[in-house]
Amino acid sequence: MSVTVVGSIAFDAVTTPFGSRERMLGGSAVHFALAASFFDTVHVVGPVGDDFDEEEYEVLRARGVDTRDIEHVAGRTFFWRGEYSWDLSTRQTLDTQLGVFAGFEPRLSDESRGAELVFLANIQPQLQRQVRAQCTAARFVALDSMNLWIETERPALIEALGGVDCLMLNDSELRELTREPNLIRAARQIHGWGPSVVVAKRGEFGAAMVTREGFFALPAFPLETVLDPTGAGDCFAGGFMGYLGAHSGHEINHELLSQAMAYGTALASFNVEEFGVQRVAALTTDEIAERVAELGGMTRLTAKPLALRG
Amino acid sequence: MSVTVVGSIAFDAVTTPFGSRERMLGGSAVHFALAASFFDTVHVVGPVGDDFDEEEYEVLRARGVDTRDIEHVAGRTFFWRGEYSWDLSTRQTLDTQLGVFAGFEPRLSDESRGAELVFLANIQPQLQRQVRAQCTAARFVALDSMNLWIETERPALIEALGGVDCLMLNDSELRELTREPNLIRAARQIHGWGPSVVVAKRGEFGAAMVTREGFFALPAFPLETVLDPTGAGDCFAGGFMGYLGAHSGHEINHELLSQAMAYGTALASFNVEEFGVQRVAALTTDEIAERVAELGGMTRLTAKPLALRG
Repeated sequence: MSVTVVGSIAFDAVTTPFGSRERMLGGSAVHFALAASFFDTVHVVGPVGDDFDEEEYEVLRARGVDTRDIEHVAGRTFFWRGEYSWDLSTRQTLDTQLGVFAGFEPRLSDESRGAELVFLANIQPQLQRQVRAQCTAARFVALDSMNLWIETERPALIEALGGVDCLMLNDSELRELTREPNLIRAARQIHGWGPSVVVAKRGEFGAAMVTREGFFALPAFPLETVLDPTGAGDCFAGGFMGYLGAHSGHEINHELLSQAMAYGTALASFNVEEFGVQRVAALTTDEIAERVAELGGMTRLTAKPLALRG
Repeated sequence: MSVTVVGSIAFDAVTTPFGSRERMLGGSAVHFALAASFFDTVHVVGPVGDDFDEEEYEVLRARGVDTRDIEHVAGRTFFWRGEYSWDLSTRQTLDTQLGVFAGFEPRLSDESRGAELVFLANIQPQLQRQVRAQCTAARFVALDSMNLWIETERPALIEALGGVDCLMLNDSELRELTREPNLIRAARQIHGWGPSVVVAKRGEFGAAMVTREGFFALPAFPLETVLDPTGAGDCFAGGFMGYLGAHSGHEINHELLSQAMAYGTALASFNVEEFGVQRVAALTTDEIAERVAELGGMTRLTAKPLALRG
């Protein structure tokens, strides 16, 4: 079993209250791939420019990521510059340079097409549909998006949703997409469009999932030090999809998806502890296992039945 | 064992996207008392005016609440008018008339003083200290506050915290109070001021608790229909403190407090299903037990150890 991700490969310039970095390896496909690499083989699909060097490839290859579908195009790699607020809860995009991403036409190798798990990271909905159509062996496809596409490409996005099993979106974007403020009602609407799984990413409040079978939620892993939230959502998706990928023979049901949420939560929490991909690229499997176990303890309800007063 | 609450007894006028009510029984002490009444005897301390009738007393007495310390003062009962945004996440206060609350000097009967559990609902910090000083039998005291007191009475509030075991505050108010954006660091600062338990109320994202022993968090119970969030935080506190009150012989440790969070979450969720106190006043004990059990299922992590790829 393997996991294919299509999305941005980027250089990020990030300022948070805890520091600045001018040029870090980033992008949704990169964050996702590194996180998922602890669970399964990952194929990355996306374009890079002339400024993308062996050094950057090496970060992915060191984690066993398949980079054959990283397409080298003349020009510059996608670049994003952003700055976070004092409590890291909001961020401002200061610059976006699409570079080689502008004319991107995803072309998948047989290996990438053959993956059972597919993550369509946040790119134009039309491109997401093209990739989805090529992944004929897919057993479970998840899609991320953003307010830009909700506002400019809503019909195309809803059409893309028709071909996927899972929508992962920020809580506020779910409301915006469905024009429904209540999460449960919003999720039911999305179930009607195709995806049977809706994951609401809630930043420091964690994540909630609404499947046709029920509801599940986890808090974010509590951290005293958060340096850079960039890529946390993609690392969540990487841990989540990777966990499913590691369970090839299993039915993908509410219970398995709930467990996947815990691994997604763990990977996201590591990501934010350092700038860029620094922490996740250097992670150990023991650290992941330990954090998931800790998270279990922090959410375990042991209440015994109580005689109440009618 | 019994629980004493001091706080507002009010008439509320509320507008939400789902309707308006012109005059409902409300106030933090009322919401708290009704929620806690399913667990333990509750003594309510607070002033009411000439417009507070037998009908209102009866709502409390029907749930076995001790109303002897509801003080009748010439004048009008505290009145609050507010309006909620489309997604219920923010609200605007349109009118506040303190009425008899303006000159309130809490005087507790022996019964109220003798309670082992005390909740100092959101009132002036100086009054909270007066009540705390009278409650000589208290085993566990919790305090709520609001941005108004953080902005106008911060030193008095921090002094009041010196005498309590638990601070329950909205997430954003915890940051404002401590001037620290990170919840864990904010909680450690508050531990240093006295309270060993910090509960961050997160509205529809649930609640998180930081004790000296660790972290615990629960999502809000997912609801398709939320009509009126007014009083949810006080109902949470009522379920939480009531649960502790029902465990007289037990040590109040991290585990018992985590269980109390589940009952708080359940009571808060019922409260928002109808306007005012309507739902909680008519609740059955079976409904509470069922909701807590459901919440347990929605947060239960069953992940088995997984062989990860180093």
